[in-house]
Amino acid sequence: MTALLIRNCQALHISATAQITLLRDQDILVRDQRIEAIQPTGQADPSHFTTVIEARGMLAMPGLINTHAHVPMVIFRGLAEDVSIERWFNEFMWPLESNLQPQDVYLGMRLGAAEMIEGGVTTVADHYFYMDEAAQAVADSGIRALLGWAIFGSSGPAMIARTGEFVARWQGAAGGRIRTLMAPHAPYTCDDDYLRACVAQAQALDVGIHIHAAEEMGQTRASLAKRGLTPIQVLEQTGVLERPTIIAHGCGLLPEDIERLRGRTVGIACAPKTYLKLAMDMTPVIALRQAGIAVGLATDGAVSNNTLDVWESLRLLALLQKDRQRSPEVLTIPEALFIATRESARVLGYSDLGALEAGFLADIILVDLSGLHHQPLHSLTASLVYNARASDVQTVIIDGRVVMQDRVFTTLDRRAAVADVQAAMDRLAQRIPAKRIQVYNP
Amino acid sequence: MTALLIRNCQALHISATAQITLLRDQDILVRDQRIEAIQPTGQADPSHFTTVIEARGMLAMPGLINTHAHVPMVIFRGLAEDVSIERWFNEFMWPLESNLQPQDVYLGMRLGAAEMIEGGVTTVADHYFYMDEAAQAVADSGIRALLGWAIFGSSGPAMIARTGEFVARWQGAAGGRIRTLMAPHAPYTCDDDYLRACVAQAQALDVGIHIHAAEEMGQTRASLAKRGLTPIQVLEQTGVLERPTIIAHGCGLLPEDIERLRGRTVGIACAPKTYLKLAMDMTPVIALRQAGIAVGLATDGAVSNNTLDVWESLRLLALLQKDRQRSPEVLTIPEALFIATRESARVLGYSDLGALEAGFLADIILVDLSGLHHQPLHSLTASLVYNARASDVQTVIIDGRVVMQDRVFTTLDRRAAVADVQAAMDRLAQRIPAKRIQVYNP
Repeated sequence: MTALLIRNCQALHISATAQITLLRDQDILVRDQRIEAIQPTGQADPSHFTTVIEARGMLAMPGLINTHAHVPMVIFRGLAEDVSIERWFNEFMWPLESNLQPQDVYLGMRLGAAEMIEGGVTTVADHYFYMDEAAQAVADSGIRALLGWAIFGSSGPAMIARTGEFVARWQGAAGGRIRTLMAPHAPYTCDDDYLRACVAQAQALDVGIHIHAAEEMGQTRASLAKRGLTPIQVLEQTGVLERPTIIAHGCGLLPEDIERLRGRTVGIACAPKTYLKLAMDMTPVIALRQAGIAVGLATDGAVSNNTLDVWESLRLLALLQKDRQRSPEVLTIPEALFIATRESARVLGYSDLGALEAGFLADIILVDLSGLHHQPLHSLTASLVYNARASDVQTVIIDGRVVMQDRVFTTLDRRAAVADVQAAMDRLAQRIPAKRIQVYNP
Repeated sequence: MTALLIRNCQALHISATAQITLLRDQDILVRDQRIEAIQPTGQADPSHFTTVIEARGMLAMPGLINTHAHVPMVIFRGLAEDVSIERWFNEFMWPLESNLQPQDVYLGMRLGAAEMIEGGVTTVADHYFYMDEAAQAVADSGIRALLGWAIFGSSGPAMIARTGEFVARWQGAAGGRIRTLMAPHAPYTCDDDYLRACVAQAQALDVGIHIHAAEEMGQTRASLAKRGLTPIQVLEQTGVLERPTIIAHGCGLLPEDIERLRGRTVGIACAPKTYLKLAMDMTPVIALRQAGIAVGLATDGAVSNNTLDVWESLRLLALLQKDRQRSPEVLTIPEALFIATRESARVLGYSDLGALEAGFLADIILVDLSGLHHQPLHSLTASLVYNARASDVQTVIIDGRVVMQDRVFTTLDRRAAVADVQAAMDRLAQRIPAKRIQVYNP
């Protein structure tokens, strides 16, 4: 049994109804993996705790949650710039991924987990290949993850069973830090029978599904032209939406699609930087939320998003809803902070994550707002949404364990995380367009 | 005479035609305020220099340039959030500015200069009130600045003469680091006669003009409805465009306005984060550049932009042009870096700033790209545009003088810069809407 005391911090409380309260001079008591209490400082006896963190002047808040990523792709970061989405897939990404070896996924996940932890991200929903290696890196790094092994229709039905075995193997691993689900790539890369088989597998294993759908309006139009159904209708008809589902990115959702999602256990992952960079559309965050559908923050992979910086996703999500709605008054600061925490947790199917509340999982970050870019701090909540940088995160606790303290990792070897990927750079950067794992033709 | 040697860095060369070259293992030699040479490392004798900076592993590049700001407004940071542009001006900004005392401008400029230097910004074009105090803070902090004292028609004609005296008093001050110009606020707050008088004053003093115009399409429409002229036509007819002019923000430029600006010594300052936050339009960067008109990066004031982070402006300018043009292939990485440096210098009227070239002013930043969010560094230039954070800047040289080394200021007292503003927070935050310095009604 471990016990952690975070002493004398300011604590950001985000209620289930998106009310934000700043509690001053608080102690946070953690037992094992959960928050035991948040109480005025001075009542707890430090000698009763195995670890004490002095947090005077720090803001404690829930760790950020990345609801859709391909973390190991950090190994290809910077290799596909200023190109159209078709070229991005067909000439860059999918040829590059033909270089991928299982060990690369371990190294990429380890490096990406380090980047995320350093930036205050404590949970990630990841969708990639060779996920046993990814899961091992998650276990080693200390981050929390919801993992799915990405499969295409062209991967063949055997891969459904094989990724199902991955699901069973890692579900609840690393003391519960790892959860798993099925991850068919998208309706445009998996035919209906394939999706149905994935649903059956998910049902048999009692897990959810993580899938790309309606990524941009062009895909929705193509699907309507080819078969008279939107991508969301395809998910509906193949039974995907009967399972708890994470949909990335939903920029091509029609109003009637939002009606189809209403009332289901479905969350939408929004990665706004990627959408700008690839000139896609934008997730209709406000319409989705009005329909009661959870929207979470995401970074997608670093080959489109360049970084795994969820603060940047938070800022851009808020700014771009104002922009798209032509109103500075929408997507307010409390709503943005709610999306970043409790609502992103809901997208991933957690009801005990994303808030500093007794009984919740102890994923806590300490943020230093003394930086010049925050001063003077007339509005702490505004600063979190519009000013904060990943570099402001000082200390990170995941599952009750201190994984970074004062910007020093306790679980990860930072030098090795970088050097081991650097050693493979030349091999990873080779690119033969004819040699690709898939063709983009939605 | 001072001599500075920056040893063994990588140097980013940006040509006058936006060609980017990375030079490895370079020494940069600085004499007094200018770059003397950039040459392969090892040839220069360190004993001939008064200061030697070991820069192995660092990237040297030109300092960033903020082409339009109201730096002292950092003192009001966070006080006007999630409100419409009308309310932003009439209920927040202009009432808050009625609290302004001259000393606040000194403290705000000092704090903002510190924030900018820490983030690699070496030059700023500032447009505010009580500019003698701002100029003093510029002189003290070591930053380079082009300063204008903002005036409204309602300020009365005496203020034209008075701000002209400011121009004369500070032109070329601080060893040339300070330049000045006239700063009528906008065509919607200065009538035609007032603008003409400002032009005459600028002409008499042989300086340029810094003005807001066509900030958003609503202003252009209002101007057309009220008087049948676009804001740019008003600038044309009042002679403003005969002077070297900085126009902020130009989001309401019509195609015919771009034709009116063609061939003139006019630059447009683009502050994209502010435009998203206030749900304005977007500067037509690509159309302006196609017409040969310089566009520069800007942050505007921190009350709309929240920070003075020019890296964020750089990233958003590039991303939002891709978004608005619906093409990921426009506003490429070399073009973005060119805009951030040489082209922003051109907006401010400098022909010897914004590049690492012999004879250019020695405004140089050393950037550390070893951070996890850059690794592995397949593309250094992509990382500068899409990954870099203000916190990656390690060392800053302005006018040949080291103003920050390894993130420690040599000119500024960081603690006092923060504390002195914090001490005034309660007074600054008072807000009586009826008590405002101006009314927004374009």
